[in-house]
Amino acid sequence: MKGFFNLISASEFKRLLLDFEPIGAEEISLKEALGRVVARPISSPEDLPPFSRSTMDGFAVRARDCFGASESEPSLLTVIGEVRMGEAVTDISVSPGKAVRIWTGGKLPVGADAVVMLEYTRQLDPETIEVFRPVAPYENVIEKGQDYGASDLVIPSGTKLRAQELGVLAALGILKCKVRKRPLAVIISTGDELVPEWQSPPPGKIRDINSTTLSALLETDGCRVVRMGIVGDSYEAMLTACNRAIDMGADLVLVSGGSSVGNRDFTLKVFEDTRGAQVLAHGVSIRPGKPTILAKRGNCVLFGLPGHVASAMVVYWVFVRFALCRLLGTDPERGLTRLGATCAEPFPSVIGREDYIRVVLEGLCQGGEKKIFARPVHGRSGLISTLVKADGLLVIPRDIEGFHQGEEAEVILFP
Amino acid sequence: MKGFFNLISASEFKRLLLDFEPIGAEEISLKEALGRVVARPISSPEDLPPFSRSTMDGFAVRARDCFGASESEPSLLTVIGEVRMGEAVTDISVSPGKAVRIWTGGKLPVGADAVVMLEYTRQLDPETIEVFRPVAPYENVIEKGQDYGASDLVIPSGTKLRAQELGVLAALGILKCKVRKRPLAVIISTGDELVPEWQSPPPGKIRDINSTTLSALLETDGCRVVRMGIVGDSYEAMLTACNRAIDMGADLVLVSGGSSVGNRDFTLKVFEDTRGAQVLAHGVSIRPGKPTILAKRGNCVLFGLPGHVASAMVVYWVFVRFALCRLLGTDPERGLTRLGATCAEPFPSVIGREDYIRVVLEGLCQGGEKKIFARPVHGRSGLISTLVKADGLLVIPRDIEGFHQGEEAEVILFP
Repeated sequence: MKGFFNLISASEFKRLLLDFEPIGAEEISLKEALGRVVARPISSPEDLPPFSRSTMDGFAVRARDCFGASESEPSLLTVIGEVRMGEAVTDISVSPGKAVRIWTGGKLPVGADAVVMLEYTRQLDPETIEVFRPVAPYENVIEKGQDYGASDLVIPSGTKLRAQELGVLAALGILKCKVRKRPLAVIISTGDELVPEWQSPPPGKIRDINSTTLSALLETDGCRVVRMGIVGDSYEAMLTACNRAIDMGADLVLVSGGSSVGNRDFTLKVFEDTRGAQVLAHGVSIRPGKPTILAKRGNCVLFGLPGHVASAMVVYWVFVRFALCRLLGTDPERGLTRLGATCAEPFPSVIGREDYIRVVLEGLCQGGEKKIFARPVHGRSGLISTLVKADGLLVIPRDIEGFHQGEEAEVILFP
Repeated sequence: MKGFFNLISASEFKRLLLDFEPIGAEEISLKEALGRVVARPISSPEDLPPFSRSTMDGFAVRARDCFGASESEPSLLTVIGEVRMGEAVTDISVSPGKAVRIWTGGKLPVGADAVVMLEYTRQLDPETIEVFRPVAPYENVIEKGQDYGASDLVIPSGTKLRAQELGVLAALGILKCKVRKRPLAVIISTGDELVPEWQSPPPGKIRDINSTTLSALLETDGCRVVRMGIVGDSYEAMLTACNRAIDMGADLVLVSGGSSVGNRDFTLKVFEDTRGAQVLAHGVSIRPGKPTILAKRGNCVLFGLPGHVASAMVVYWVFVRFALCRLLGTDPERGLTRLGATCAEPFPSVIGREDYIRVVLEGLCQGGEKKIFARPVHGRSGLISTLVKADGLLVIPRDIEGFHQGEEAEVILFP
């Protein structure tokens, strides 16, 4: 009773993932927002900076008063006051021939349109300075609203918040924002040969690895993770586990193992029978990762992953991460570094299949130019050690028979 | 009373950072280990895999028994049993002419040295199969210890633990490991013009940004962060804050603002007078970031950073991150993506200074080859919006006057 794959291409598989919608939003505070994904566009409630500021220590002046100033013919200006840091200057106005002492970050007084650096001035007496370099209008000044004007779009929806975005929010006093909820991901490891990592495996058994690797990947990508532990190779036990994941409100269910077409592979049948679920794909033309299953239950994504850790991780990077980006409403290309590398040896493949080869990268100088070379990781593809040694995945597209030595290929870097 | 910088080069600055030692270690469990840095080399306590395993569903055989097998002249083998998943097979031994049913992940029985895929066999009767393809010794088998042999080095000291390393640890049953403590970083924001982000700034004041951006960067890089908040431009207040940071056991102190040479810049004097501290550098030939101060108190690193958020973030990426890598005992180059890009316009600089220019990258096809072009971010360098828009920093080395349009330059990608 051996089944067959119904192979689709990687791009068809990704197209199926476009059917899933971004999950719900919640309001959180700025302090918890690092790494979260903005769910509504954020606009500026006010001008940033809120006033024109000096970027130097020096004197606020009218630029035209320093026109043509030089060492031999300095401009003479009368100092009429000082901008004290953090104070509004309401009583000083810079009129022709006048200057006001100002510090980096100080508010430009009325009438002034530029700041002369202290270095280009000489104090003649407490009330008089010489300026011996001209200054252009708005030189050494950041104008009010130059970063963002009131109601400007500051952060578009779907942005993952990094230090710089949080800085802008702090600057604008935006202390709360709507972000996507953290997706709830449930991991189910299947296989009669598995024991938990804290057990010493009796002969014939090995420790479960996928629960650990998948939960680390999911956490890195912003999920709340529930590990359901190990379920034996049994249709009933696996179906119960999947239905439980649905009941928990999972946004993503990853079942590793049992995704192939052998008569001990139950994942397909289990997904078909999971309450309200519908299988979208069984088998995808990539290597490793061919025995991958995709199912849908409402907006919940169910993946059947190959049992071998190396294959499961490749499918994660290629498809699960893509699905997560859909659930979070982010661009799947954002945060993924792809670079061009020269093949240090031939990379054979076959037409009709996309290959993801674990490679190490070496930067070498060749003819004055720095080139990056990609070399396959030493060791058989089934080994977990190859993942530890690799810098990334070299992609062999579907429509070519591989790369010759010296050809340029694309490498997706491991985060 | 204006001071002067004592400028050193970026590489001299980094050399000073090499003086700091990795901080203490602690033992943690595998479940908390994601992103932590291994403090002692980890060796394998046993063979991985612990036994030779099949990577396919099929039959365990002696490869020589299938030598020359073909559709027209298949090898006939007697099936003498089955390897049940997760069970040790002690009573079956594969002698000449015999085969044993096996599943993916099953333990190879004694006597067998290869697995024939199910697809290449035909069942004649319950006890006899035909094999119509030859199989090489160890084909479809991962041998015992092929990933790691007992006492092999698995993870070198200084490795940041990712999903793949955690997977190896789980596979080997290593549930605890010694990692570097999370460095304690204290942030002090100085400036009379600052108010906390939750206040509406009165005229002349602005909200503090550096506390937010620096703590996000430090958290991303694995620190425990204490924000000391805003300290006014006062020598006494700043000295008290620095001494308090030392008393708290800080591994890293970041003081933003007041690092220049104006008479309102107190950080240098404060570091000189901080209990037990010693100033190592004041001023570095990079732009932005010239007014940077480095001091040392025991193994605690004290940084005086420019007050402007854009400069402070550049100094963070160039130097603070480097210092953190020293404290964690990791390679500063690891986790930093540098790529080559073509200058879309001229990038002028001056000899003797390293420039870090915020750029956006564009991938374009030119003459059949895909090239990445770097373009400076639109907007003046003092703007925080430029950081949000930038993809990374283009580096102009110290010994050149910049790049011409079309020249190749190095870009450090923002994480």
